Amino acid sequence: MSKGEQTRRAILDRGTDLASQVGLRGVTIGVRADTLSLSKSGLFAHFKSKEALDIALIEHSGARFTELVIRPALKAPRGEPRLRELFKRTLDWPLRLGLPGGCPMIAAAAELDDCPGPARDALVAQQKDWLDTLSNLVRIAIREGHFREHVDPEQYAFELYALQLSHHLAARLLSDPQADAKALAAFEALVVRAKAAPASLHP
Amino acid sequence: MSKGEQTRRAILDRGTDLASQVGLRGVTIGVRADTLSLSKSGLFAHFKSKEALDIALIEHSGARFTELVIRPALKAPRGEPRLRELFKRTLDWPLRLGLPGGCPMIAAAAELDDCPGPARDALVAQQKDWLDTLSNLVRIAIREGHFREHVDPEQYAFELYALQLSHHLAARLLSDPQADAKALAAFEALVVRAKAAPASLHP
Repeated sequence: MSKGEQTRRAILDRGTDLASQVGLRGVTIGVRADTLSLSKSGLFAHFKSKEALDIALIEHSGARFTELVIRPALKAPRGEPRLRELFKRTLDWPLRLGLPGGCPMIAAAAELDDCPGPARDALVAQQKDWLDTLSNLVRIAIREGHFREHVDPEQYAFELYALQLSHHLAARLLSDPQADAKALAAFEALVVRAKAAPASLHP
Repeated sequence: MSKGEQTRRAILDRGTDLASQVGLRGVTIGVRADTLSLSKSGLFAHFKSKEALDIALIEHSGARFTELVIRPALKAPRGEPRLRELFKRTLDWPLRLGLPGGCPMIAAAAELDDCPGPARDALVAQQKDWLDTLSNLVRIAIREGHFREHVDPEQYAFELYALQLSHHLAARLLSDPQADAKALAAFEALVVRAKAAPASLHP
């Protein structure tokens, strides 16, 4: 890596730490104030604008997520075991990455949802990709015969993501020691439902 | 209301609008810059500090939530009908309140989760109260014989809140036209599970 690439990478690593704690809005000041001690013009020599930095941070977090959650889960057997491995990894990936806060993408979602622009667009595309990944794994579980045909993959992805979000709130904001146990119990109940005959769902 | 109380109320109403769009961090600047056109010292004559304003906004949003979601739901028959009415009302209450953005408490959760202090403490207490309200309504549904005895009220509250959070993300960030339908379908599936014999949950 060239010196410029090294600095860019250092900004993104430090920026992801900050985004996990204080959100994207806190990154510019934080990156400049701390160990990197860049001037504002120094920072914007690497990223043309705050918006370009936000987009780079969203992509950087997404790449780490793929490395720590999606790629290792793909090594598990297709279908239900792969989906379970993926779900478990979503719960602790900020910790595995050594982030001081929670998931930077969940923080960014609350920040950007009413701020139209390219950064929001990048986050929306990334979140849709994630929901597609979940629904594709559900589709595979149906094809493998682990889940029944009546399961709606998009609906199921919505419910899986729901558990991640509730876990994030319970673990990060409420410091609930049962956050992991609750998320895993809810996941297992979803799996049981996906294996049950449709009749038992609509009695 | 005295003039001071009127201004205080106007700040809180406008501040809640802003918190629903840009989070608590954007409130101070927004309240001062727009129609209220208060000076910084004028604003802090009503709220001693940014932190006191944050706490007042959290309490103000919570009071509106109680008015628009909890109180009307308590008019529905005890048990399952009351829980369903409550859940439905969580989905559109920011709209009913005329807020330009989403739920200000969900936005605040992402902002404050790594910022220890009295504002975070106020939000945590409020979120725990909400989870207690949910689990109490589940307990009533069990006592009324609508839900089975095996249902764990705290676990159920975690899963109900999960659906609210996923709905918020789908509706606000992803502009998913199916957000309401997905949340309601997931709620009905949770109800079916709460009525099923425990054997069918652990086959």
